[in-house]
Amino acid sequence: MATDEHAPARPVVVVSNRGPISFRVGDDGGLVARRGAGGLVSGLGPLVAGTDATWIAAAMSEGDRRAADRGVVETEGFRVRTLAFPPDTYRAAYDVVCNATLWFLHHGLWDLARRPRFDDRWHEAWAAYRTVNEVFADVVAEVAPDDAAVLVQDYHLCLLAPVLRDRRPDLRLVHFSHTPFAGPDLLRVLPSAVGAELLDGLAAHHACGFHTPRWARSWEASYRELRGGSPTAATFVSPLAPDPDDLATSAGSDACRNSLDQLEERVGDRSLLVRVDRIELSKNLLRGFHAFDELLRRHPRWRERVVFGAFCYPSREGLPEYLAYRQEVEGLVRTINDRWRTDGWEPILLETADDYPRSVAALRRFDVLLVNPIRDGLNLVAKEGALLNERHGLVALSPEAGAWFELEGAVRRVDPYDVVQTADALASALGATVEERRVEAAELRRRARARTPADWLADQLAAAD
Amino acid sequence: MATDEHAPARPVVVVSNRGPISFRVGDDGGLVARRGAGGLVSGLGPLVAGTDATWIAAAMSEGDRRAADRGVVETEGFRVRTLAFPPDTYRAAYDVVCNATLWFLHHGLWDLARRPRFDDRWHEAWAAYRTVNEVFADVVAEVAPDDAAVLVQDYHLCLLAPVLRDRRPDLRLVHFSHTPFAGPDLLRVLPSAVGAELLDGLAAHHACGFHTPRWARSWEASYRELRGGSPTAATFVSPLAPDPDDLATSAGSDACRNSLDQLEERVGDRSLLVRVDRIELSKNLLRGFHAFDELLRRHPRWRERVVFGAFCYPSREGLPEYLAYRQEVEGLVRTINDRWRTDGWEPILLETADDYPRSVAALRRFDVLLVNPIRDGLNLVAKEGALLNERHGLVALSPEAGAWFELEGAVRRVDPYDVVQTADALASALGATVEERRVEAAELRRRARARTPADWLADQLAAAD
Repeated sequence: MATDEHAPARPVVVVSNRGPISFRVGDDGGLVARRGAGGLVSGLGPLVAGTDATWIAAAMSEGDRRAADRGVVETEGFRVRTLAFPPDTYRAAYDVVCNATLWFLHHGLWDLARRPRFDDRWHEAWAAYRTVNEVFADVVAEVAPDDAAVLVQDYHLCLLAPVLRDRRPDLRLVHFSHTPFAGPDLLRVLPSAVGAELLDGLAAHHACGFHTPRWARSWEASYRELRGGSPTAATFVSPLAPDPDDLATSAGSDACRNSLDQLEERVGDRSLLVRVDRIELSKNLLRGFHAFDELLRRHPRWRERVVFGAFCYPSREGLPEYLAYRQEVEGLVRTINDRWRTDGWEPILLETADDYPRSVAALRRFDVLLVNPIRDGLNLVAKEGALLNERHGLVALSPEAGAWFELEGAVRRVDPYDVVQTADALASALGATVEERRVEAAELRRRARARTPADWLADQLAAAD
Repeated sequence: MATDEHAPARPVVVVSNRGPISFRVGDDGGLVARRGAGGLVSGLGPLVAGTDATWIAAAMSEGDRRAADRGVVETEGFRVRTLAFPPDTYRAAYDVVCNATLWFLHHGLWDLARRPRFDDRWHEAWAAYRTVNEVFADVVAEVAPDDAAVLVQDYHLCLLAPVLRDRRPDLRLVHFSHTPFAGPDLLRVLPSAVGAELLDGLAAHHACGFHTPRWARSWEASYRELRGGSPTAATFVSPLAPDPDDLATSAGSDACRNSLDQLEERVGDRSLLVRVDRIELSKNLLRGFHAFDELLRRHPRWRERVVFGAFCYPSREGLPEYLAYRQEVEGLVRTINDRWRTDGWEPILLETADDYPRSVAALRRFDVLLVNPIRDGLNLVAKEGALLNERHGLVALSPEAGAWFELEGAVRRVDPYDVVQTADALASALGATVEERRVEAAELRRRARARTPADWLADQLAAAD
């Protein structure tokens, strides 16, 4: 894979739904800029800040919308161009198409006997998605320097390339998918013309990138089955990695230290099983708790000897599916705690407030980290846990997480749908000897440190050429 | 493809879950034999009856269980060997593994955020499935003549071949899948050892057959992704077809004529849209009715001018998913009828009694036949409708039905998840001119008649060599 030894010769334009900066309207009516969060922004932000790169993103807040009027804004080290859309248009594109269709598609989350149902409202939302993509393409065409490398991020923005190919043939277009990619059987769920538009939109880039060879194969298989032949876009694989310096800074903060103290107090001398996830259907929270229930049933020695710290913060609660899922999760945790709790022992600590320092504290402290998604583009938490942990903790990882491809052999395998196998794997990990833990955790750290965000950016720039 | 010009040189053994004959205990305590029903039996039965072939199947009734004690029974032209299992073992294998796991797997019917969850009970059921398969293998090993071609049918019986390879290396083993076949992403849902056992079980045959090239590709892709390399079993494609003589006999019966008269009376001079299906999650009944609702909304000229005769009989009601689905279907039909009905016009006639002559009558009479499954191994109804219809009726077919591969170009395409596109396709089909109907229906009949059940049997025998 490429490294950043050679500074990129081409100017760089990053295009993503969410930008590196968010604006709010200050007390004096002026705009106040703040660095944003999220995996993409935290990975890419530091590499782009202070460069001449331009970052184009959708306006999320009223402040962002005001910033949009000013064109390219230079602040906090970024050159940012924010795009404002009519709220209804953006919401249809973002909620209905991006979150409720494309996310579900690539993660295989539909109960297909019932959902999706493509009706008039959905077709209008698809038109809105197309509009949003066209506006993005227009702005890229306008502001991109000659011969720039345009790095388009994720499923929100699949239709830019055909427009840009026409209007700006000098640009080099790279698309990177942060999700899994739907295989042919899943892609056929879309209305046939929409599936074709999506695949053609991606294939019009010069290169398409994925976190694992498996998602890259899915992309190629879907293109072949639905469009015939191979896509003209080159396919490349480049897993994202966490930034160790960034993690060290978070781990060293006072907030993290305080959270760790509180956690230690609650856990005491028990073993600590941890998960850190959004409350997201693909993360497989329900079966994770069922597996913990099985663990206590099948392996009585762990009763009162283990605490499951589940740091799971709400997400996309505008979609009824997510609200229902959260309620199921909370109900199941209550049932399991009611079944097993004793004086002085609460088996599961479910924390649903989004508290990043506390999550980092949990990753420093775990004995075993459970990462059991049913399908996940990469899963940075598995790698972050490996880098942050201070107790030679072990990671129990689903092969359906993209990170499996890099971490296999240094983690314990959990079959995400098999709660018996998961329970036994957790029991075995919790019972590992100090020496086993030392060896395994060292190998895991080595793997998790093998790449940096800079490698990932360099791969995209290399793919542009 | 092979024909039956040359009588097969090898003795034949057919192995399937359901046999061609069912037995009941008569008033005098003796066993009374009756020919069974079902797509496989009606296709294969007439070809096997009167030959020396032996048919091995599970006992379903108390009579079947008694027959099992007698070894090979010769009756109604068949040589049948019925196998009795302890009821709990058979129920675990059939309900939990076959119907609630393998059927859902190959049809992609799971709401994966919640189902399946492989727990202790499921693992016990898998052990029962393995036992049932082993008992089948033992009996085949015992009764199969030297060098016989053993034709193993469907997902109920995937694990016979490894046992038979050891015990009877003289046999030639063919497996035929009547369902779709799960691609790699779906197959990974199974516990990893179970997925491997299933794929290895199939690959141990000399040949594996499927209704379409698409399912054959899925099988090969799944084997490649999960097991590495290509399966040693040869892959062949051989779509089943209805028997025209058998259909003509049913169509000519008094019961069918009476049903047709009653149907004519209810429909009058209106156009008739028909569907004939089990109430089965993969058949996509809900979206079919939603599409009809859209048709009436978007194309007002069809209000009071079309009747939707839906002949949908219950299936697998022991599984809660099917009972819930039936209730949703019935509720939706009520809602739509309440919305649109007028004096003298009931938009949807939903008939849920299993009445074969009435279904045949509906297939004789339709103007448009809707076959919109989300996934279907073949779908014989589409071909039967083509052969039975007496009004140059058109077929609106989902590309997710295996029959699409043979009928594309002679049918109207309906995207199964897109109720707007389906509504418009139905409106267009209902509004076709007499000349359009004549040309299209003729081509459709030609395609549906292109093969017979004998071709399908001959392909399996050819694959054995």
